[in-house]
Amino acid sequence: LRQGFPEVVYGASKTPEQAAAIVARLSAVHPNVLVTRASEAAARAVQAVVPEARWDALARLIVVHRDQARHGHGRIVVVCAGTTDLPVAREALLTCEVMGNDVTLVADVGVAGLHRLLRQVAVLRQARVVICVAGMEAALASVVGGLVAVPVIAVPTSIGYGTALGGLTALLGMLNSCAPNVTVVNIDNGFGAGYVAALINRQPVG
Amino acid sequence: LRQGFPEVVYGASKTPEQAAAIVARLSAVHPNVLVTRASEAAARAVQAVVPEARWDALARLIVVHRDQARHGHGRIVVVCAGTTDLPVAREALLTCEVMGNDVTLVADVGVAGLHRLLRQVAVLRQARVVICVAGMEAALASVVGGLVAVPVIAVPTSIGYGTALGGLTALLGMLNSCAPNVTVVNIDNGFGAGYVAALINRQPVG
Amino acid sequence: LRQGFPEVVYGASKTPEQAAAIVARLSAVHPNVLVTRASEAAARAVQAVVPEARWDALARLIVVHRDQARHGHGRIVVVCAGTTDLPVAREALLTCEVMGNDVTLVADVGVAGLHRLLRQVAVLRQARVVICVAGMEAALASVVGGLVAVPVIAVPTSIGYGTALGGLTALLGMLNSCAPNVTVVNIDNGFGAGYVAALINRQPVG
Amino acid sequence: LRQGFPEVVYGASKTPEQAAAIVARLSAVHPNVLVTRASEAAARAVQAVVPEARWDALARLIVVHRDQARHGHGRIVVVCAGTTDLPVAREALLTCEVMGNDVTLVADVGVAGLHRLLRQVAVLRQARVVICVAGMEAALASVVGGLVAVPVIAVPTSIGYGTALGGLTALLGMLNSCAPNVTVVNIDNGFGAGYVAALINRQPVG
Amino acid sequence: LRQGFPEVVYGASKTPEQAAAIVARLSAVHPNVLVTRASEAAARAVQAVVPEARWDALARLIVVHRDQARHGHGRIVVVCAGTTDLPVAREALLTCEVMGNDVTLVADVGVAGLHRLLRQVAVLRQARVVICVAGMEAALASVVGGLVAVPVIAVPTSIGYGTALGGLTALLGMLNSCAPNVTVVNIDNGFGAGYVAALINRQPVG
Amino acid sequence: LRQGFPEVVYGASKTPEQAAAIVARLSAVHPNVLVTRASEAAARAVQAVVPEARWDALARLIVVHRDQARHGHGRIVVVCAGTTDLPVAREALLTCEVMGNDVTLVADVGVAGLHRLLRQVAVLRQARVVICVAGMEAALASVVGGLVAVPVIAVPTSIGYGTALGGLTALLGMLNSCAPNVTVVNIDNGFGAGYVAALINRQPVG
Amino acid sequence: LRQGFPEVVYGASKTPEQAAAIVARLSAVHPNVLVTRASEAAARAVQAVVPEARWDALARLIVVHRDQARHGHGRIVVVCAGTTDLPVAREALLTCEVMGNDVTLVADVGVAGLHRLLRQVAVLRQARVVICVAGMEAALASVVGGLVAVPVIAVPTSIGYGTALGGLTALLGMLNSCAPNVTVVNIDNGFGAGYVAALINRQPVG
Amino acid sequence: LRQGFPEVVYGASKTPEQAAAIVARLSAVHPNVLVTRASEAAARAVQAVVPEARWDALARLIVVHRDQARHGHGRIVVVCAGTTDLPVAREALLTCEVMGNDVTLVADVGVAGLHRLLRQVAVLRQARVVICVAGMEAALASVVGGLVAVPVIAVPTSIGYGTALGGLTALLGMLNSCAPNVTVVNIDNGFGAGYVAALINRQPVG
Ligand SMILES: Nc1ncnc2c1ncn2[C@@H]1O[C@H](COP(=O)(O)O)[C@@H](O)[C@H]1O
Ligand SMILES: Nc1ncnc2c1ncn2[C@@H]1O[C@H](COP(=O)(O)O)[C@@H](O)[C@H]1O
Ligand SMILES: Nc1ncnc2c1ncn2[C@@H]1O[C@H](COP(=O)(O)O)[C@@H](O)[C@H]1O
Ligand SMILES: Nc1ncnc2c1ncn2[C@@H]1O[C@H](COP(=O)(O)O)[C@@H](O)[C@H]1O
Ligand SMILES: [Mg+2]
Ligand SMILES: [Mg+2]
Ligand SMILES: [Mg+2]
Ligand SMILES: [Mg+2]
Ligand SMILES: [Mg+2]
Ligand SMILES: [Mg+2]
Ligand SMILES: [Mg+2]
Ligand SMILES: [Mg+2]
Repeated sequence: LRQGFPEVVYGASKTPEQAAAIVARLSAVHPNVLVTRASEAAARAVQAVVPEARWDALARLIVVHRDQARHGHGRIVVVCAGTTDLPVAREALLTCEVMGNDVTLVADVGVAGLHRLLRQVAVLRQARVVICVAGMEAALASVVGGLVAVPVIAVPTSIGYGTALGGLTALLGMLNSCAPNVTVVNIDNGFGAGYVAALINRQPVG
Repeated sequence: LRQGFPEVVYGASKTPEQAAAIVARLSAVHPNVLVTRASEAAARAVQAVVPEARWDALARLIVVHRDQARHGHGRIVVVCAGTTDLPVAREALLTCEVMGNDVTLVADVGVAGLHRLLRQVAVLRQARVVICVAGMEAALASVVGGLVAVPVIAVPTSIGYGTALGGLTALLGMLNSCAPNVTVVNIDNGFGAGYVAALINRQPVG
Repeated sequence: LRQGFPEVVYGASKTPEQAAAIVARLSAVHPNVLVTRASEAAARAVQAVVPEARWDALARLIVVHRDQARHGHGRIVVVCAGTTDLPVAREALLTCEVMGNDVTLVADVGVAGLHRLLRQVAVLRQARVVICVAGMEAALASVVGGLVAVPVIAVPTSIGYGTALGGLTALLGMLNSCAPNVTVVNIDNGFGAGYVAALINRQPVG
Repeated sequence: LRQGFPEVVYGASKTPEQAAAIVARLSAVHPNVLVTRASEAAARAVQAVVPEARWDALARLIVVHRDQARHGHGRIVVVCAGTTDLPVAREALLTCEVMGNDVTLVADVGVAGLHRLLRQVAVLRQARVVICVAGMEAALASVVGGLVAVPVIAVPTSIGYGTALGGLTALLGMLNSCAPNVTVVNIDNGFGAGYVAALINRQPVG
Repeated sequence: LRQGFPEVVYGASKTPEQAAAIVARLSAVHPNVLVTRASEAAARAVQAVVPEARWDALARLIVVHRDQARHGHGRIVVVCAGTTDLPVAREALLTCEVMGNDVTLVADVGVAGLHRLLRQVAVLRQARVVICVAGMEAALASVVGGLVAVPVIAVPTSIGYGTALGGLTALLGMLNSCAPNVTVVNIDNGFGAGYVAALINRQPVG
Repeated sequence: LRQGFPEVVYGASKTPEQAAAIVARLSAVHPNVLVTRASEAAARAVQAVVPEARWDALARLIVVHRDQARHGHGRIVVVCAGTTDLPVAREALLTCEVMGNDVTLVADVGVAGLHRLLRQVAVLRQARVVICVAGMEAALASVVGGLVAVPVIAVPTSIGYGTALGGLTALLGMLNSCAPNVTVVNIDNGFGAGYVAALINRQPVG
Repeated sequence: LRQGFPEVVYGASKTPEQAAAIVARLSAVHPNVLVTRASEAAARAVQAVVPEARWDALARLIVVHRDQARHGHGRIVVVCAGTTDLPVAREALLTCEVMGNDVTLVADVGVAGLHRLLRQVAVLRQARVVICVAGMEAALASVVGGLVAVPVIAVPTSIGYGTALGGLTALLGMLNSCAPNVTVVNIDNGFGAGYVAALINRQPVG
Repeated sequence: LRQGFPEVVYGASKTPEQAAAIVARLSAVHPNVLVTRASEAAARAVQAVVPEARWDALARLIVVHRDQARHGHGRIVVVCAGTTDLPVAREALLTCEVMGNDVTLVADVGVAGLHRLLRQVAVLRQARVVICVAGMEAALASVVGGLVAVPVIAVPTSIGYGTALGGLTALLGMLNSCAPNVTVVNIDNGFGAGYVAALINRQPVG
């Protein structure tokens, strides 16, 4: 049923030793393993026992990616507004890749500078599914939603201050998108967005 | 780009006269039109000018469905816990249908009576995408998410009292689902869930 | 100091008799009087004692507009996304007018249909100040903010359902606009936006 | 009235010296004393004056357990989903033990992997009362509530990020459980859950 | 497993016809049936098909209570502060009764008039379990919790105004009770409290 | 008008140098000066320039108290539940003293151990005004309010965890006190409570 | 202890019959009785059995005021900004009167028209205690607090729309008043403010 | 369109290296650059590559201000209550200056000491636009709004404790200002306020 799916570990509350032990155990039976929200120390501990584990400092991901089979049918585009959203965008992008997808990143396309976004419309329209990562008022999700005819998975981020409320404002905005093709995941949950995008992009079942 | 997509009208704040005028105008150029959150009075006014418009009292939808072409690739399953969630589930189901999909409804499968849900696992596993409609604590989304390997679109509903907070509790629960294949739409937004499910289920683009 | 300013009455909690008495008293000494959030009954009662009072049902405003002097320097543009935001947009527009300004309304330009908004860029760029009225995710404020180089006064509206939270989501989005030229007023406060726009647009003081 | 009850100290805001002094005083007249939310430093200070005091680093509990009489009638089962909930689960478990109960821990049974939970149904059904410790969407409480016919005390935990809201989402979900046998305590309050479970499990009064 | 448990129907969102049909079906195979949050119209419709159904207007409960076997071991005491909490208290009381328990109601014992509460200490101490129903600041739960050595199930009520926040303030207060024997159910959930009290009070399993 | 009132400085956001400079300036013209929320470093800096300044580590107050005239008419009683509320209670107590009042502290009288509180009723009834400092569910305010016939100023504290919400739960409970003689100040605002208590206790004006 | 205090009934959730019965019983043994939040129907029912009961439609109070002894020492001033706050202000004023106090009402003194407030400074300074009733941003409490040297009891009102949040904004503003002589009661709680003002204004105890 | 506008960088989430690189790139083509929320380390790194960059420690701004042309028409007045609001006030002031405006700062004019504010009325009335920076109860915005006939841009600050809620209380108060000339920006957003004030104060377009 779940062929090509990685095993995924939530790294936030694990010691380096726990992380290493779990990845060692999982990678013995699964080709691909992902540890999210991992510290560099955890990455080092994992690499000591599973040398092919890769560490992405920006996304804070540990990636064991041995089965590189392609499962995706079309292309996934990850779009984000500014540099502050890049860690979450990259978490989404790497999740898509480890699940066997071709992914394109489109960054620096905030809605207050519409011309930069409009220059990317052709790229956006090549997508089978779009992941839209945005903080603050998160208007990007609605604008992108209106530019494409495929599902848009919106990831609110926790950047901003004051009434950004740690990402709640972006989340609420995305849930109220006037574009009907938008669904939403938890704040900063680039992994979840990438995972669902990969499911949408898989070869049809029947 | 958007062939097979209905025109959609948000009926909540429109008078019967406004609704009738808009549907008359839209249905002159589009085969399929949907009015969400419509009153019965609006439905009657629309039918006076567009006789083939159908009125679904439970879903509060007005449906003009002339182009019945099938666009969906697999099957969509809409699952909900109890009778109180049925209006939202039906809004989702009819949206899928008008967008050319085969849909199955699985109702009365709350998680506190797990055996009823487990009897439906085979049906759930036939889905290319699942829509899960639930209120109160919304645990159904996580349980269903764990039972299938396809995207689950979760729709929180506003039923319940006290700390149900008009659906916010269900929404928050769904956003924190421990199943990674769950994305979420606004409270009671059966339409949005159906729309995205139809997009996921469409024939691949390339 | 305040020449050309109307007297303004908050009509929400006043009986028709109270409204009539207040407007009678004020209009004896002030040429222009505005009653916001007024009922039709209040309008009828006012007109019985102040016949030149006009009643705008959409904006729920009673307007006594005898001094029609022009105080505005440039043009004010009021922009809103859909029909549901029109009552608030009209409250803003009429407030601007009674304060002696030329105003243009641009409606039906939601961000999910960007082409309609982009067709209005020239109109928007003629403004000395823009009022942007939007509900739901309120992305319009950021997009418009990026298209003009003048102040944008954003008015969140209470339309929507579920996580629209009666306009709080729109408000929060606008306060977090990534366009730096946006300031915000209370939910549904078209009057306040119009009033400040008129102040900005007045002849320079010195 | 309260024979067999420990004296309980809330350690969170006490210095090691204060903790030691209080435990010394209490343990002179009470056989069993519990200090919750204690630091290791406090534990060391207590052990210097009350050598039989035990320190549980995971639960952050200091335990003086001299009267080991059995007061419980049946068995208490503590169930939790993942490793992150273990500290709270252990605080509950040790509270039950010091109050004279037999306790079983069932861990790693999240609802998104239902088969693991279903393998434990026989264990769950041996309980006179169940304590269910869960964070994020807390769906476990409803599912477990449906599997047993005894009281379930639900403890929301503060793990998670973004919309987990420090445990509020789990709490709200548990309060809205569709299983009628669920009551709830404060976020992370393993102690309170253990205490009430022990009261329920005591020999009948009359 | 669940002998002596009533079938329970959530009446809030059902038409009289639906209620009657469900009760007719359930009461054909179950001796005892409860419909909560029922309207008088629903009660009349039920009585037309199940004549022994009783209607309690205060609690808004429909009760079919044919199997009157006693399942409770000790006594349940329901305590509430004032007359405004009586509907919820009575919902709890009747739920206990239909599940085969002896119940005592202690009303009009708010904490601001402590002498009235203190006069009832002997009654409270006869309880195997106490249900404490209170709105506003809900201090009663902590005071009662300190007076007894058995579990206290606290039910916050939605009475009050302003910062009572529809019962949230009472709920939060109860969750933070300084008495360790208090657990909490949803706002106004007298049924849930009664149900759990009955489970606690049942004959021991083994 | 304000004879006998201290000058008060909010120390939270001031550097030691700023604090010293302000106190030096104020104490040159005012006999009594208070710095709230002061660090020890600030206290040391102040004492270098104003040697008679006293530092209270528990209350985090710097006190210059040269005019020791008695302005209070009756007695002020400060009551709090546990040791964790003592810093706030002491801030209130010292504020009362520097404003010329006799104050009594009653500590360790939580409502879950009612007997301890009842032993202090005679002391409470000697008060012209009571300050009640309490965190968590803050039930103490209502109980004390019912025991006396004078004003009770309630100070919610930020202790507790989870749903204590940093003192909001205590605040909300106090605002909903069923005792009518309770008014409330900001969370942890012992200073404000002491100040108002001193005003109430002053010799009558006329 | 409580001589001169009225008996007070919370009328919000009582039927006219209940109100009449309670007032009949109380007024047989107490000279003064107050029913707050009473409907006109309740007032009529009460007057049928207690003819001297007075009904104040604005404050929604039923007042039995037979013992007209003067208990207040100084003067109480009730100040409010606009006409919308008058019902709450009058509830406070009548409570003070029935408790034997001289009261002055100062209305129509909002802070945005400071000159009107400043004209009343002499009146404000005659007060032994001030009650300040205000909605929206509630700035009046701070300004009045700075103008007098006596306690100010602030009553937030629920008027306003959008972000007025039913009075929460006014409440929060008052709790954060930069004037140290301000304490706060629940939203719209004119009664509570009047009650405490009367306590402050009573003849000294000793 | 945007002549005389600085390039603005949001410094909060950038490393010193990133900040230096961005400013180097921008200042090569733009005369004026602003970095907000910058650390001292970032300032040093920027100055190493762009020597004319100035660092303002209080406002945490890096300023490159080469084109000193005057674009403002009138005067901007920045007003704040106390020393704690000065960092935000200064961020606003420097933003105005770098955009070519004459700015006056009026500090230490809290509403609880009205005389100090009233002494500044003449200064306030010279403004073409006022920026009002205030935390806690933010009443200053309404009072200032009533004293001038020009737009007031209100900036809530995050100072205070407890119910100050990190600036939300001030924000909500400002949005509910009873003065109609007040608009609001995000908490602590001195930059945004300064930017809009500069736009308002620019030479008229036509
Ligand atoms: N129930 C609904 N919930 C969310 N969006 C909707 C709903 N019904 C219609 N829409 C969207 O609202 C837009 C039409 O709005 P309107 O022009 O006001 O009728 C379409 O883009 C739809 O995608
Ligand atoms: N972790 C905890 N959560 C809630 N209540 C607790 C906790 N630990 C101790 N208590 C209660 O706090 C009281 C002791 O508080 P203290 O006197 O401050 O040590 C006892 O009544 C305990 O029931
Ligand atoms: N802890 C406190 N809480 C509330 N207000 C305070 C506190 N300490 C001082 N104040 C008030 O803050 C003002 C002084 O503020 P500042 O000028 O910043 O020192 C005085 O009016 C005091 O009444
Ligand atoms: N302190 C601030 N608050 C709000 N917006 C800001 C702030 N500083 C810069 N910006 C905006 O952020 C954008 C630059 O973001 P970035 O490209 O991440 O440096 C510009 O459009 C500015 O208008
Ligand atoms: Mg949507
Ligand atoms: Mg997920
Ligand atoms: Mg902005
Ligand atoms: Mg329940
Ligand atoms: Mg507890
Ligand atoms: Mg009160
Ligand atoms: Mg204060
Ligand atoms: Mg305004």
